[in-house]
Amino acid sequence: MKILVLNPNTSAAVTARIAAVVERFRRPETEVVVGQISHGPEALESSYDESLAVPHVLAAVANANLQRFDAVIIAAFCDPGLDAAREISGIPVFGLEETTCAVAMLLGNRFGILTEQPHKVAVKQQHIRKHGFDARFASVRPVGMGVQEIATDPERVARVGLEVARRMVEDDGAEVIVMGCASMAGHADDLERALQVPVLDPIAVTLKVVEALAELGVRHSKRGLYATPAPQQVK
Amino acid sequence: MKILVLNPNTSAAVTARIAAVVERFRRPETEVVVGQISHGPEALESSYDESLAVPHVLAAVANANLQRFDAVIIAAFCDPGLDAAREISGIPVFGLEETTCAVAMLLGNRFGILTEQPHKVAVKQQHIRKHGFDARFASVRPVGMGVQEIATDPERVARVGLEVARRMVEDDGAEVIVMGCASMAGHADDLERALQVPVLDPIAVTLKVVEALAELGVRHSKRGLYATPAPQQVK
Amino acid sequence: MKILVLNPNTSAAVTARIAAVVERFRRPETEVVVGQISHGPEALESSYDESLAVPHVLAAVANANLQRFDAVIIAAFCDPGLDAAREISGIPVFGLEETTCAVAMLLGNRFGILTEQPHKVAVKQQHIRKHGFDARFASVRPVGMGVQEIATDPERVARVGLEVARRMVEDDGAEVIVMGCASMAGHADDLERALQVPVLDPIAVTLKVVEALAELGVRHSKRGLYATPAPQQVK
Amino acid sequence: MKILVLNPNTSAAVTARIAAVVERFRRPETEVVVGQISHGPEALESSYDESLAVPHVLAAVANANLQRFDAVIIAAFCDPGLDAAREISGIPVFGLEETTCAVAMLLGNRFGILTEQPHKVAVKQQHIRKHGFDARFASVRPVGMGVQEIATDPERVARVGLEVARRMVEDDGAEVIVMGCASMAGHADDLERALQVPVLDPIAVTLKVVEALAELGVRHSKRGLYATPAPQQVK
Amino acid sequence: MKILVLNPNTSAAVTARIAAVVERFRRPETEVVVGQISHGPEALESSYDESLAVPHVLAAVANANLQRFDAVIIAAFCDPGLDAAREISGIPVFGLEETTCAVAMLLGNRFGILTEQPHKVAVKQQHIRKHGFDARFASVRPVGMGVQEIATDPERVARVGLEVARRMVEDDGAEVIVMGCASMAGHADDLERALQVPVLDPIAVTLKVVEALAELGVRHSKRGLYATPAPQQVK
Amino acid sequence: MKILVLNPNTSAAVTARIAAVVERFRRPETEVVVGQISHGPEALESSYDESLAVPHVLAAVANANLQRFDAVIIAAFCDPGLDAAREISGIPVFGLEETTCAVAMLLGNRFGILTEQPHKVAVKQQHIRKHGFDARFASVRPVGMGVQEIATDPERVARVGLEVARRMVEDDGAEVIVMGCASMAGHADDLERALQVPVLDPIAVTLKVVEALAELGVRHSKRGLYATPAPQQVK
Repeated sequence: MKILVLNPNTSAAVTARIAAVVERFRRPETEVVVGQISHGPEALESSYDESLAVPHVLAAVANANLQRFDAVIIAAFCDPGLDAAREISGIPVFGLEETTCAVAMLLGNRFGILTEQPHKVAVKQQHIRKHGFDARFASVRPVGMGVQEIATDPERVARVGLEVARRMVEDDGAEVIVMGCASMAGHADDLERALQVPVLDPIAVTLKVVEALAELGVRHSKRGLYATPAPQQVK
Repeated sequence: MKILVLNPNTSAAVTARIAAVVERFRRPETEVVVGQISHGPEALESSYDESLAVPHVLAAVANANLQRFDAVIIAAFCDPGLDAAREISGIPVFGLEETTCAVAMLLGNRFGILTEQPHKVAVKQQHIRKHGFDARFASVRPVGMGVQEIATDPERVARVGLEVARRMVEDDGAEVIVMGCASMAGHADDLERALQVPVLDPIAVTLKVVEALAELGVRHSKRGLYATPAPQQVK
Repeated sequence: MKILVLNPNTSAAVTARIAAVVERFRRPETEVVVGQISHGPEALESSYDESLAVPHVLAAVANANLQRFDAVIIAAFCDPGLDAAREISGIPVFGLEETTCAVAMLLGNRFGILTEQPHKVAVKQQHIRKHGFDARFASVRPVGMGVQEIATDPERVARVGLEVARRMVEDDGAEVIVMGCASMAGHADDLERALQVPVLDPIAVTLKVVEALAELGVRHSKRGLYATPAPQQVK
Repeated sequence: MKILVLNPNTSAAVTARIAAVVERFRRPETEVVVGQISHGPEALESSYDESLAVPHVLAAVANANLQRFDAVIIAAFCDPGLDAAREISGIPVFGLEETTCAVAMLLGNRFGILTEQPHKVAVKQQHIRKHGFDARFASVRPVGMGVQEIATDPERVARVGLEVARRMVEDDGAEVIVMGCASMAGHADDLERALQVPVLDPIAVTLKVVEALAELGVRHSKRGLYATPAPQQVK
Repeated sequence: MKILVLNPNTSAAVTARIAAVVERFRRPETEVVVGQISHGPEALESSYDESLAVPHVLAAVANANLQRFDAVIIAAFCDPGLDAAREISGIPVFGLEETTCAVAMLLGNRFGILTEQPHKVAVKQQHIRKHGFDARFASVRPVGMGVQEIATDPERVARVGLEVARRMVEDDGAEVIVMGCASMAGHADDLERALQVPVLDPIAVTLKVVEALAELGVRHSKRGLYATPAPQQVK
Repeated sequence: MKILVLNPNTSAAVTARIAAVVERFRRPETEVVVGQISHGPEALESSYDESLAVPHVLAAVANANLQRFDAVIIAAFCDPGLDAAREISGIPVFGLEETTCAVAMLLGNRFGILTEQPHKVAVKQQHIRKHGFDARFASVRPVGMGVQEIATDPERVARVGLEVARRMVEDDGAEVIVMGCASMAGHADDLERALQVPVLDPIAVTLKVVEALAELGVRHSKRGLYATPAPQQVK
């Protein structure tokens, strides 16, 4: 089995962190290529950033189809281009946010998402609404740090992340915490020990689920939401 | 007041049709520029098509800010790039789908959307879920024609559109019909006469609402969902 | 175009305040008559108060139809008699609450309502549920003042209103604030400056939307919720 | 215990039918006064009709408080004036629609409502949304007859009612049928026998529940939705 | 009329408390047998506990059918075995949680549940979701005491219960409080006096509703959720 | 890794069918024990049947904890005893229904469930409501056959199953079909070929997901819904 884990930004440092998680969790017989998009932003902190990245994500997904990968993971928690990627792809494509939230619902009554900046609270609420997962959603809370700061100040992430996640658990009724940012995910184990609830690293969880479903040969439906696009004239 | 009505595809024929609606409905004192994106697909029939168009939509919106427009309308029913456009824009940006559905809820208990192809049913259901409008949504039904066919066979659109819209009204409880495709919108008046319920042309409705709100100086919130993006390194 | 803005209570002072907003925001070519009901309570602070006002609202709406108005606005935030008015009216009738909340959903992820008394929290939650707008509703919070007190102590309204609205923005995730009381609406501009999110004056917003939709000739659906009543014997 | 069952219209024939049901089902020790409003429409088939009846309903409820009744039932399926009545009443007030639907949820997964005219479908959908009972609501279907016709053509009501109710049971998943019109309620037993699911006569169900709750001394909450109105100047 | 009130645990002390409530509230002509299951846990504080009790609950319900009872009440707030009991029973079976929450929705906008232990918050949220009552649900808050402690330290229950219920009323918008534990129910009157909102004792409320519905001859639907089980081979 | 796949009924034939699926899909290095409960019904077609099986399911889960299994799958589509099993288990426990529906939401907009008997429609609707998956749920439709008949008349299952699933796809908007009965699951491949949408065999899907999550060491949250039960006196 051959899986493409695609970092949908152009930060080599982030790609390296993703690769480390993949290396730790992939099954020995799974071949995983960890790549990044050829052009685009170094971090995706807005819909705008995502919009710039998505055409390159789609090119990479198209290429993965040609290269006979068995599945693709778009490895940022905002799932940039996921619907479009599924439209143009015969092989299954999975996103971190959608997959990890679905798994979280198997582990407790309500889940919470730890995010970066305060404005992401509204963004995640919109995504949860789009997924239709509201009934099982406890809350989303931000650590109040940007992607860059998260990468360079792990101590503060650890401290603030614990405080914030604890509020989700104790005040908002979250029984499971989803690390809503690839850059924070390395803190999952520590948080889990401290809070005594499952804390999910989206890359690890998604990788394992995709290994499982790809092995089973499951594909996404091409009938409605992900129907293959009709050819268009593109100027 | 100066409004940009942006056709987010590269079909000059569609742009001309939009311009005709704009010309019919704009207030005399409203200056409206009807434009289209510089590059991209001729029609947007999938998320994939939209993904290719969006970077050009965003460039046009950024430009409209520089040129001191008072508002922008993204004039396709799928609202391509709307969230991202609002992030980067100080002037208000409106989409046809979101605006027209909001207006439809002021006119009757439940609204229905007339769409093009069968696979769009799922797409519209997802959009309605994202908007949180499900409680007032009757159904979406397709005419079973592509954008091209809709443009070239108006007689069939009229006939099938009436049949399909009638089923939404009689079987699904739609009290208001939203023409879910800019290319079909020219049939709104005929449908309205035949069905005796409001049938909304999204371009007309959105233009009038935007004139109204722009005059009032209303802007979108920049606090959460549409927060101004942090600067990124783009490779 | 000729619009009736109907104050559904008998307070001349409130009617005057409404007239001032109308005068400020109406388009020059829009003829607006600002009226009030002939009999009824001086303020509507309960369903009971509304029930006494509604027959007089309906009489005024019927009269506006005879006098060839193009649209009617029922100018209190509780939308008293709106459904019944639409039943008996061929011309469109709009309410402040329904219209302003629909517009708020175009401007941010979730909106909050600033209301008068604590017991209004439950009332507004019920209304939002009836509208089906829950998914986009942040919260409603009261300033803890009655209509009379709001009219006579603007300083306190300003101070408490800011505190309360700030909690909606910072704690409840409101990206847009709706002034849920015609008497408070004069504070909208100050709140908007202080909070840096859109703060909507329902009279201004509704007036502009109604000018727009009336110009377009949009009417409410007469098929279901607003079907014309069958004649009854009335004793 | 002394209960007022108030017919909120001025049809003596309807009042008599209500009285017959009451007489059949009341406990011997329950004193029930069956009354009707002093002025108002002979039938309530629209929000407009209800608006005209409500002030008289409220007067009757106020009077029932003075005359030391223990509870009031507003005996039409549209619950006209229920919220306002609860505001001004210290004794509990119940409506047929709200009470019967709540009981229906104790008897099966989803309930259906049999209503009169097609336009009532939207009205009932709105009411169910206001009550927040959507998750347990199968459908509402009309017999396509007005109140007058229902009263005068019982044979047709029986035949069409059975057809329509059967569709709710077989096609819409209704496990319980609520007779959504006081005038149809006499057919409940026959329908129940034919369909082999519970068919609820709202007057009978509400009367029994009210006897039970009044005996227990349960009252509605006066803290929020039903807070006692502040005194107003009424011109 | 003959009703079985079944304590679904093996605590004679709890059975005695239930019997006291029943004795206080039953109508003189209602014959009520208060029983308990023959084997099983002394208290039901988990799904596990319930699972052990349910087969004995079902045996008792089957027996009540043979002994020509008119109705059964399963007298613990978790409604253990309710769906299965309705399947095998021709006579109506009611649960405290479902019935009391349905009644609470007739008395105010939103209700809150006072529960025992913190982990019960998630359990009650799940139950409310299953019932489809979320739209009318304010919150659930725990007193932080086990069933045993609740029985033996009434003073602490009274003090903490008041604090916690007050938070539901003042912070969460509960207009009605449901005592979510048979053992706490004796404090309902005191809480009601202190908080000035209805506080419902589930045993009292359910008993009265069941007397009422049984008198009316209402039964649960046997068509879907409670269809009579097909015979099985049981090893 | 060592997984217990527990058939929660006493049919050796069903256990054998489950074992065949497991054998086909398990990874070579996964040790799977396929077992069945020691006592209980031969088929679970009702809540009543489940109630009899659950104590034996719980005993088996407790035993699997002692025997150092890594995970347990309760292998019937009704997830009998799942919540209680998670309470008493330190190792993760998964159910077919919950897991397969969560996976289905990763593969298309809405999923449909193929079930056995008509009365199961309501049961599945209740389960979906409990899971909070309604927003992504297309419908459930029955083949109209009992478990026994399904096992003995595969030809009819194939024919009727295809018809019924096709209606879910074409009429109800299901993009993914979930085989809602372990006994029907063998037809998944044929249905998938015929309908050209993913058709999920719950045993296969759940097995793969559990292999994946167990490898990752994910456990369910013990904080709320699945908190470890306090010890009880059991008579």
